[in-house]
Amino acid sequence: MTRQTFDLLILGSSSASPTSERNPSAQLLNIAERFFLIDCAEGTQVQLRKYKAKFQAIDHIFISHLHGDHFFGLPGLLSSMHLLGRKQDITIYCPKELQGIIELINKVSETTFNYVVHWKFTDNTGLNLLFEDSKVEVYSFPLKHRIYCTGFLFKEKPLPRKIDKFKLDQLEVSTSEIIKLRKGMDVINDNGVLIKNEEVTLDPAKARSYAYCSDTIYNPAICDFIKEVDLLYHESTFLEEHAARAKKTYHTTAKQAAEIAKNANVKKLLMGHFSVRYGHLESFVNEASVIFNNCELAIDGKKIEI
Amino acid sequence: MTRQTFDLLILGSSSASPTSERNPSAQLLNIAERFFLIDCAEGTQVQLRKYKAKFQAIDHIFISHLHGDHFFGLPGLLSSMHLLGRKQDITIYCPKELQGIIELINKVSETTFNYVVHWKFTDNTGLNLLFEDSKVEVYSFPLKHRIYCTGFLFKEKPLPRKIDKFKLDQLEVSTSEIIKLRKGMDVINDNGVLIKNEEVTLDPAKARSYAYCSDTIYNPAICDFIKEVDLLYHESTFLEEHAARAKKTYHTTAKQAAEIAKNANVKKLLMGHFSVRYGHLESFVNEASVIFNNCELAIDGKKIEI
Repeated sequence: MTRQTFDLLILGSSSASPTSERNPSAQLLNIAERFFLIDCAEGTQVQLRKYKAKFQAIDHIFISHLHGDHFFGLPGLLSSMHLLGRKQDITIYCPKELQGIIELINKVSETTFNYVVHWKFTDNTGLNLLFEDSKVEVYSFPLKHRIYCTGFLFKEKPLPRKIDKFKLDQLEVSTSEIIKLRKGMDVINDNGVLIKNEEVTLDPAKARSYAYCSDTIYNPAICDFIKEVDLLYHESTFLEEHAARAKKTYHTTAKQAAEIAKNANVKKLLMGHFSVRYGHLESFVNEASVIFNNCELAIDGKKIEI
Repeated sequence: MTRQTFDLLILGSSSASPTSERNPSAQLLNIAERFFLIDCAEGTQVQLRKYKAKFQAIDHIFISHLHGDHFFGLPGLLSSMHLLGRKQDITIYCPKELQGIIELINKVSETTFNYVVHWKFTDNTGLNLLFEDSKVEVYSFPLKHRIYCTGFLFKEKPLPRKIDKFKLDQLEVSTSEIIKLRKGMDVINDNGVLIKNEEVTLDPAKARSYAYCSDTIYNPAICDFIKEVDLLYHESTFLEEHAARAKKTYHTTAKQAAEIAKNANVKKLLMGHFSVRYGHLESFVNEASVIFNNCELAIDGKKIEI
């Protein structure tokens, strides 16, 4: 059996303003065919089209904070979803003021969407469960930026135990019993034979996790929330040579992002939200690698399997 | 002497939603190095960069109405102007509700631009002077759409008379006297000779004009406002086969746009705001040409000299 999908498509990696190569922040996360849009800069709907993502499949949108480079694409995306026939509900997880903006825009344009928008407001007092279903949990947690801002943590639910097919083939077990075995239960088959779970199952693959941290000043306190994630996206707006500017504007350098990755003991660091002042980005990897080896750049259009 | 610049750069020609080839409505008009941005769909700042237009040179922005495909790029453009160091005032001519949207966005993002935005609200009761300086006049006029909407009329001021250089070379005339001659006055030179204006000047070129009509239902009443313009941009969202849909949604077909061009006796018709349902656009020209011969398509990136 192949593992369920868990991949991340980068739709934007610039900070503040778009450049000719980089759109500002947006990402599409696919966990087991649940499509989560994370931030939605101006141009996100075009990026979704460009990279062949089906935007009507998105049922959950997460907005970290209300600087324009993280949400100016939302009115247009919601409008296109409406115009192209969406009927299905959508849920937006965001700072509470966003609802007023979208509702004001709809009011002046005399628009009523043909689908329902559910608003769920983040809070930045701690780890806060926003969404869960049978396969996924999503939490927000506080980030320190110039304005109210949260990160997001996406976790697979614990996966079912693996069936040891070789052993099971020698026993008579029904489909419903297999489901129980995958949940970790013992079963008794039709012949009255007790089958102990540990004899026919193997530990499942470890549930995977992804954390999104943009925008934030260097803040080791977040390590509690993102400990040991498989992939950490952490903003790296600046290089260390601009550390003073990073601090002043509540952003992070590549070196600082690597410190966070190291302290949180994550598997891999993904850097993005690059200042438009940098044309080439190799220095970000060079700088971070000294502290934390397994790091890479968010590049528009790149898909990362987690 | 070459004539002053009067050209139009198409930044978007789609209606409603962007497609892979067409962004929604935005145009940049340059009259004598005054840069007028007309409508500002999502992605306009990227289009300006793509087509090498200097967006900090824009001091006047005209928004026809508050459907998203005509203004969702404005928050991002204003934000980028701020972030990239703009200090110069900008004036936005628009429906009055737009100010509240921009101010709400700035409030929640705790942003104060480093430049002043002047708001001038259009009114749709008739031809309404919005702006004038020594070279240009701009008016709004009413369009009939689902929501409040205006068109815009841009006119060169009457141009100065042309000097007949051959005749003038035989007379002694100072620079300040030439300025008076170009204004149509007679002058007396340093030798006391009266120089009659009609003897040394020629009629100036006719002042040019451009009218922008998007979005609107077919409405011959607008011909009064756009009579004999050199270039008429008229929305042509649909082909005649979808005339019923055009009427229902307060839009226009290519044939109807051509009727307007013919009745208003304009020099040239430019069609745009194409519905996303049409992949190829030749039919728009074919349909309009039967009624009005001199017509062409708005295509993203096309520059039209007027």
